[in-house]
Amino acid sequence: MLSKEVSSSLTFPELNTWYADASSHLGFPHEPAGLYNAVRHIMEMKGKRIRPVLLIMGCEAFGGDVSQALSPAYGIEVFHNFTLIHDDMMDESVLRRGDPTVHQVYGANTALLAGDVMMMYAYRFISDVNEPFVKPLLDVFNKTAIQVMEGQQMDMDFEKRLSVNEDEYIQMISYKTSVLLATALQMGAIIGQASEADQQTIYEFGLKLGLAFQIKDDYLDAYGDARTGKRKGGDIIQNKKTFLVVSALQGANEEEITRYQTMLLEKDTDKKIENVLEFFKNRQVPEKVAAQMNLFYQDALASLYKLSIDEMHKHALQQMAHMIYHREY
Amino acid sequence: MLSKEVSSSLTFPELNTWYADASSHLGFPHEPAGLYNAVRHIMEMKGKRIRPVLLIMGCEAFGGDVSQALSPAYGIEVFHNFTLIHDDMMDESVLRRGDPTVHQVYGANTALLAGDVMMMYAYRFISDVNEPFVKPLLDVFNKTAIQVMEGQQMDMDFEKRLSVNEDEYIQMISYKTSVLLATALQMGAIIGQASEADQQTIYEFGLKLGLAFQIKDDYLDAYGDARTGKRKGGDIIQNKKTFLVVSALQGANEEEITRYQTMLLEKDTDKKIENVLEFFKNRQVPEKVAAQMNLFYQDALASLYKLSIDEMHKHALQQMAHMIYHREY
Repeated sequence: MLSKEVSSSLTFPELNTWYADASSHLGFPHEPAGLYNAVRHIMEMKGKRIRPVLLIMGCEAFGGDVSQALSPAYGIEVFHNFTLIHDDMMDESVLRRGDPTVHQVYGANTALLAGDVMMMYAYRFISDVNEPFVKPLLDVFNKTAIQVMEGQQMDMDFEKRLSVNEDEYIQMISYKTSVLLATALQMGAIIGQASEADQQTIYEFGLKLGLAFQIKDDYLDAYGDARTGKRKGGDIIQNKKTFLVVSALQGANEEEITRYQTMLLEKDTDKKIENVLEFFKNRQVPEKVAAQMNLFYQDALASLYKLSIDEMHKHALQQMAHMIYHREY
Repeated sequence: MLSKEVSSSLTFPELNTWYADASSHLGFPHEPAGLYNAVRHIMEMKGKRIRPVLLIMGCEAFGGDVSQALSPAYGIEVFHNFTLIHDDMMDESVLRRGDPTVHQVYGANTALLAGDVMMMYAYRFISDVNEPFVKPLLDVFNKTAIQVMEGQQMDMDFEKRLSVNEDEYIQMISYKTSVLLATALQMGAIIGQASEADQQTIYEFGLKLGLAFQIKDDYLDAYGDARTGKRKGGDIIQNKKTFLVVSALQGANEEEITRYQTMLLEKDTDKKIENVLEFFKNRQVPEKVAAQMNLFYQDALASLYKLSIDEMHKHALQQMAHMIYHREY
């Protein structure tokens, strides 16, 4: 039994190492090479493996059989990487985690197909569990997978719209990012045979933590330091509608909106970033956004405390939440 | 019980009408409109609905509950249409069944995402059955869905290769087209609680029929009449590696290969078609291809006769096979 090998006190980084080793036998075939080399290209990139580890933590928290959680954990990582390939195509991104994107290396047609086949493998890995778990896992995963696609469409729609309010923005990032983190935890809880109530509570924990995490991502782009590995203010340069922008424009009058839009035309990027950050400051954006992040984080912790699991497992999940929330890059 | 409404003697066209009506309550949500309008665009095109009707026939043949077959039947049609959207993107096709393709109307990003979300709905519809059917259906569907992607990659690889032999070509079209027809029948048989042996036999029937069908497609492009709705010789104009080309070049000597390649450079398309058809004739292509089609068709019928189902259902499947094989357009 694999679960015996996993000490319940293992932290997120330790589980991450354990997962990398335990899942090393899972993977893809070699032929047709044109297809599966492209799949391996993204699967072998460095990544945080947050989703599979959350799934394993969810299972561990309820004393489930971790050997049953391994294939679904790998499946959810495969799914996440499928979305990255197709997102990179849509955004015409050249780099991903410092490496050239799949469509850059293998061309758009193979990237499209590699994403498609990964989605199918995601379903295959997720269904590779004892029969009683198959339908419950698929039902929650499927609902979430559809929401992730809908979130991506909302994101594309928002880029074309003049104004987006905070609620709409939060629904979009909830679909695009948070529901998958939440579902990873819930899928683990299903394998741990958690009650329906506990499943919903751990889902809420993941959802709120995901929202705090995603807003922090926007925040760090403007206020983070060199350790993020990205150019500070990159989102500002690209005129991206981040939560900071949405928050700055919420309740702004016409004169302020016009002033903001004029700033976007500035050609000198240093000057542009400086102006926009000044605008954010005047609109109390850093304070409002920090408060919103903190609210989601506190909501997440409140859900965590409600779970009927032992203190040791609560502590492990809390530590992980702390690590995700307090990261500075 | 829906199954009571379906007379066992219903023919393929009758079942097609029944399916269109019975599945009319299945579909997609409306928001985000940008996404689901694109989905509806392809789902509402005219189409033969061969795959869902095969699934229902497979279920009926073994006296299964047709009400259980309806959602998976719709799911397999959704899956097929997802592949059409992404294939049209890869081929940069402008028209599909006379209508503009999804990416032409909605742009590449939405077409990509619409295909992705349809794939997820395919899984959802296929899993929307009584629990004992979920895993068996998913296992066969999943294997096939992966093969369809691999077949598409092989097709792309073959276009770049100088020579492809008949066996390789048949494996490619088997994956790209036939396995889905075969699996539709097998999924119906699973819902009809057919034995493992009968499931394999009806799969073989569908696979061989699909091969005959696909080779006929290539054949009709060169030798069909105006009723195909396509320009005669369209594949020749585009230098497509059809089964006719593969068959013509199998065993050809260097002089013949060079002569064929020179023909492809001809600018006058009428002249080009004439030359290539003359080359095919000299290489006994029409006879060889007709013989190969007939072989697959006879193999299909041989499998059909082995099924442990009553004569009436054998007759219905035979009629359907006859209709597919003897179509002239």
